[in-house]
Amino acid sequence: MRPSSRALDELRPVEILVNYSKHAEGSCLIKMGETHVLCTATLEERVPSFLRNSGLGWVTAEYGMLPRATNTRMNREAKRGQSGRTQEIQRLIGRSLRAGVDRVALGERQITIDCDVIQADGGTRCASITGGWVALKLATQKLIKAGDITSDPLLSNVAAVSCGIYAGQPVLDLDYPEDSDAGVDGNFVMNSDGALIEIQMSAEGSVFSRGQMDELMALADKGIAELVAAQNAAVANA
Amino acid sequence: MRPSSRALDELRPVEILVNYSKHAEGSCLIKMGETHVLCTATLEERVPSFLRNSGLGWVTAEYGMLPRATNTRMNREAKRGQSGRTQEIQRLIGRSLRAGVDRVALGERQITIDCDVIQADGGTRCASITGGWVALKLATQKLIKAGDITSDPLLSNVAAVSCGIYAGQPVLDLDYPEDSDAGVDGNFVMNSDGALIEIQMSAEGSVFSRGQMDELMALADKGIAELVAAQNAAVANA
Amino acid sequence: MRPSSRALDELRPVEILVNYSKHAEGSCLIKMGETHVLCTATLEERVPSFLRNSGLGWVTAEYGMLPRATNTRMNREAKRGQSGRTQEIQRLIGRSLRAGVDRVALGERQITIDCDVIQADGGTRCASITGGWVALKLATQKLIKAGDITSDPLLSNVAAVSCGIYAGQPVLDLDYPEDSDAGVDGNFVMNSDGALIEIQMSAEGSVFSRGQMDELMALADKGIAELVAAQNAAVANA
Amino acid sequence: MRPSSRALDELRPVEILVNYSKHAEGSCLIKMGETHVLCTATLEERVPSFLRNSGLGWVTAEYGMLPRATNTRMNREAKRGQSGRTQEIQRLIGRSLRAGVDRVALGERQITIDCDVIQADGGTRCASITGGWVALKLATQKLIKAGDITSDPLLSNVAAVSCGIYAGQPVLDLDYPEDSDAGVDGNFVMNSDGALIEIQMSAEGSVFSRGQMDELMALADKGIAELVAAQNAAVANA
Amino acid sequence: MRPSSRALDELRPVEILVNYSKHAEGSCLIKMGETHVLCTATLEERVPSFLRNSGLGWVTAEYGMLPRATNTRMNREAKRGQSGRTQEIQRLIGRSLRAGVDRVALGERQITIDCDVIQADGGTRCASITGGWVALKLATQKLIKAGDITSDPLLSNVAAVSCGIYAGQPVLDLDYPEDSDAGVDGNFVMNSDGALIEIQMSAEGSVFSRGQMDELMALADKGIAELVAAQNAAVANA
Amino acid sequence: MRPSSRALDELRPVEILVNYSKHAEGSCLIKMGETHVLCTATLEERVPSFLRNSGLGWVTAEYGMLPRATNTRMNREAKRGQSGRTQEIQRLIGRSLRAGVDRVALGERQITIDCDVIQADGGTRCASITGGWVALKLATQKLIKAGDITSDPLLSNVAAVSCGIYAGQPVLDLDYPEDSDAGVDGNFVMNSDGALIEIQMSAEGSVFSRGQMDELMALADKGIAELVAAQNAAVANA
Repeated sequence: MRPSSRALDELRPVEILVNYSKHAEGSCLIKMGETHVLCTATLEERVPSFLRNSGLGWVTAEYGMLPRATNTRMNREAKRGQSGRTQEIQRLIGRSLRAGVDRVALGERQITIDCDVIQADGGTRCASITGGWVALKLATQKLIKAGDITSDPLLSNVAAVSCGIYAGQPVLDLDYPEDSDAGVDGNFVMNSDGALIEIQMSAEGSVFSRGQMDELMALADKGIAELVAAQNAAVANA
Repeated sequence: MRPSSRALDELRPVEILVNYSKHAEGSCLIKMGETHVLCTATLEERVPSFLRNSGLGWVTAEYGMLPRATNTRMNREAKRGQSGRTQEIQRLIGRSLRAGVDRVALGERQITIDCDVIQADGGTRCASITGGWVALKLATQKLIKAGDITSDPLLSNVAAVSCGIYAGQPVLDLDYPEDSDAGVDGNFVMNSDGALIEIQMSAEGSVFSRGQMDELMALADKGIAELVAAQNAAVANA
Repeated sequence: MRPSSRALDELRPVEILVNYSKHAEGSCLIKMGETHVLCTATLEERVPSFLRNSGLGWVTAEYGMLPRATNTRMNREAKRGQSGRTQEIQRLIGRSLRAGVDRVALGERQITIDCDVIQADGGTRCASITGGWVALKLATQKLIKAGDITSDPLLSNVAAVSCGIYAGQPVLDLDYPEDSDAGVDGNFVMNSDGALIEIQMSAEGSVFSRGQMDELMALADKGIAELVAAQNAAVANA
Repeated sequence: MRPSSRALDELRPVEILVNYSKHAEGSCLIKMGETHVLCTATLEERVPSFLRNSGLGWVTAEYGMLPRATNTRMNREAKRGQSGRTQEIQRLIGRSLRAGVDRVALGERQITIDCDVIQADGGTRCASITGGWVALKLATQKLIKAGDITSDPLLSNVAAVSCGIYAGQPVLDLDYPEDSDAGVDGNFVMNSDGALIEIQMSAEGSVFSRGQMDELMALADKGIAELVAAQNAAVANA
Repeated sequence: MRPSSRALDELRPVEILVNYSKHAEGSCLIKMGETHVLCTATLEERVPSFLRNSGLGWVTAEYGMLPRATNTRMNREAKRGQSGRTQEIQRLIGRSLRAGVDRVALGERQITIDCDVIQADGGTRCASITGGWVALKLATQKLIKAGDITSDPLLSNVAAVSCGIYAGQPVLDLDYPEDSDAGVDGNFVMNSDGALIEIQMSAEGSVFSRGQMDELMALADKGIAELVAAQNAAVANA
Repeated sequence: MRPSSRALDELRPVEILVNYSKHAEGSCLIKMGETHVLCTATLEERVPSFLRNSGLGWVTAEYGMLPRATNTRMNREAKRGQSGRTQEIQRLIGRSLRAGVDRVALGERQITIDCDVIQADGGTRCASITGGWVALKLATQKLIKAGDITSDPLLSNVAAVSCGIYAGQPVLDLDYPEDSDAGVDGNFVMNSDGALIEIQMSAEGSVFSRGQMDELMALADKGIAELVAAQNAAVANA
């Protein structure tokens, strides 16, 4: 029934290529099927001015999409400025990742996660969060190994997956053909303890019920568990 | 226990002053306690280019806050451009209101809902949606009365309320002192049939459980029912 | 003869609602007939860099109009940037108010007057100056009451009124129907001693004589005296 | 008494070099003492969209200052955008020149007057209006000579001069040392019939009386008459 | 002698992975050592307005660099706008590729080459031209195969290589350590017939002689021949 | 054969009017035939932040063109922002002039060269470099005369000239009619010792050979020698 013939509760193939970038303190190329996002972590020994002398660290994110990552070429944001959608997404990524960070343990330093979509096929913001966490993990491991910090600032994994109602059925991890057709869809950000961090459900030209919401949350539980496993395997191989 | 001494499931006093603007096709000043938002509906006999000759109408929204609507003066967005937060909010308002519109019945015309926060005390985006629907309703009633359209393009009321976990307790309709202290909070947009349109739950420096999510949804159900009643009373008095 | 049936030298009904804003150090909603402007004063214990360590205070103003304050919706300036007209108006307001301020007595602090037009029917810049002065007065009274300054930094009232030639006749306080039809019109800013602070007379597609200029100045004298009385009454009631 | 030793009612030496630009339809370099402004008129056979098919022409103006036209280098506006002051000035120039134009006689075409300050020593906006009119005159003469229009669209000369109160005395045509020290100053735009087009009097940190205003207007009358003579001589020599 | 131990006239290893993008009409990832650039060609059946109804096609290019493509993270251009350097580079790429295009044979359609630097180690603009030509070639082959055009619009290969004087010696294809230390360096764009298209030699804090220029041109000849061979091999494999 | 009847290797008449600006530390108006550029040098006792406490000075340049410097009026860059072309040119001017500066001898101060095109007829960037050097020379002479620096920071003259292939012939110093028709043209920046600083050759819709490049360089040698003589004569007369 799904265009990709996947089961209703089946993720796309997940591949996480770690240390993809020569320069970044942590990086990976995450592939969720045909959606490919390059995530890099940049470590800086400074914090935004509102945190100076607070003893607290900061994790922030930026998001972008190459103009021809999509089927139809989009205008380059460097020329027209960041869209509202882009800003909304990068705020979500940063907020989500911070939910898994012990900012005291991180100390007064900043980690910027850049998520750049090389190729898009739906679910780019979820892939950015899941891959961004891996880049963040690798960068913090470097800090620990160098003795710059003594306790791990990452409290748990953070991962994200989309769920939606496609052709009347709740489905997990929508690809672009599903996403562009679903009346209801959204994103679930969770940690590796199964706790919720962020829910964004949205109906465009439709509505949904409490029962459907429960079904979508069950799908999210399953998907997040698999993504956390993929994150851990990738980090172990790094 | 709440700073305002309200019960956990108690809305702030709601007041909706209709036809507040001399010029707009529909308008109200909505007061949720000390949060005051002026909502105006502007009707135009044209649609964005992507809808031309489609027979479909369009409802969109813009949001702003006066510089001194808040306790500390903010920079004027006309000078620095719209922030990511502003763009995110106005996209939410527009998407939410469209979920209650029969765009075929509306016909090829556009209604722009301007939501301008005159005074802020938390919950401005929810007040904008709830008040924005009243402005929209009054504008569409004018169209019907004038014979420009024959069937009501509004399928149901659309209203919104915030819920969050404050001092460990789920509470309804957070004011600013609660909002700035809550680790978990979010917004529920629903229609008058009790169906869900949009959920945005977010934990900043915290997480939440499925059980808490259920409690928050129950609070939202109660709040939305009361807001729908207030909308209907306001429209009846117009 | 006037669309509003007013006498040639008759102001519109003036109403000044003081302390309209919960947050601002001084505020009023001024109504000149159907023109409604919210004026707030924000006090900050810092001055622009060019005044640092000078011992002098600063008063500045910003001006805006809600998109649907007018009969036809205007584009939101937060999206397109401030127009030349807006910048010209806010420079006028700031300059006018500073003409009534003893900046030594104010001390090294800044007061920002925000003038936001909620509803427009002509004469918004004059209403902004007249109402802005009330907000400024209330804020400086608070400084005196708190013992932060010892002598009143306001040397006199500052008020403004428009005059123009409508249908061949000099008239006072033009509303929008008059303003859009007058070939010659302008604004007079004066203090409560009857001295001139600013004159801006402009003929669009027309010219005017010295004799007409004298008649307009006489009208301004009368209007300013009435506005000063309204300011004083409002402040006394605060 | 004046820094330049001029009499109180004495203009700076006026020099108008016509046809200064190889490319423009009309041009001059106007020198008011050490203030030098290049004025060019560009003729286009099109009008702004709000005038299309109206039969009416349009005259508009733009104003700029080279970064080192002043004693201290200013930032280049091409890098930071036009300041509010620049926009205010160019609106004034355009409005002033239009007051002397028969837009029916001009026909549906646009003339853009560019006023670029090569060197500044006070009074640049007045020099721009006076020189801009010469450029406009030369361009319209070309239209007449070419037979494109049959009656002269210029109803009268338009010229401008500044007046102010310097060291307690009303003076004509302030240069920079006077301008930066005058508590009251302004600009008078008049036509060659002695009628008023625009008055902008402004007191920064000061006020002025009706009597002073009358003295300033008498100075303006004298100055404008001399400037009109200089314009006519320059055009006759072209 | 070179940091990379290459011979003076030795290119870095060249790898061109064709059809790297699922969506683009032509694409490759070109690797010049550690410099990796993704080049995509987007075909559109429209031309810029200045070419409408001319029968001529257009080839243009845009260039960007991911924020962490470099050793130190750069600010994202989507947030601050395109730098002068970026604009200069993309104008060079477009101009260079157009020099190899028969725009009559292409017909009234536009091909946009996006060159996005995934990882940078010097020579990104040259890699963009060399890889951009491959993307362009693949897109035009598709047009021919589809029968949309009948004759090949590509007259010859276009490739580019940098040369410079490093440690007193002329060297080919500078990497970042060389580039940041070279007093003289530049880029040579040539076609597969050995003809010159563009030369940009620049000395920062240094100068160079005619003799050195001749040596650099000889290096360029050798490098371009090898790059053309690599382009042809990649296209043949596609 | 040339539109101007000049010999193939003949410069346009060169005129350099020194001390053209009343305010700048050094200035000239350079005329290359009908191309007129005002060059001013502004001296500031500060350097950009990346040079603070380095002991090194800085020379930078900005470039602009008056809207009606050209045959067809261009949009004003103050309204639309600096084009890529403008930024590319001003980077070239700054880089070229710095190649002739001993930045240790200059000491920690900055000289900004503003090049503003009053009238354009081709070759404006070369005229800017040649005239900019004169302004720079005059400003540094002032520093020496004032005893602020002890050794001359200018190591040699820097001048620039364009060469191109027009109607199949290599020609020197292209004017606009030639420039707009030449398939190949470029700019040579050299010093007074005949050494090369910058070469920018570009073929639009054409290519060129090594032999043609040699001929163009010979023309450049001749032109630069004459321009250096003109610079020296102008400086001697200052």
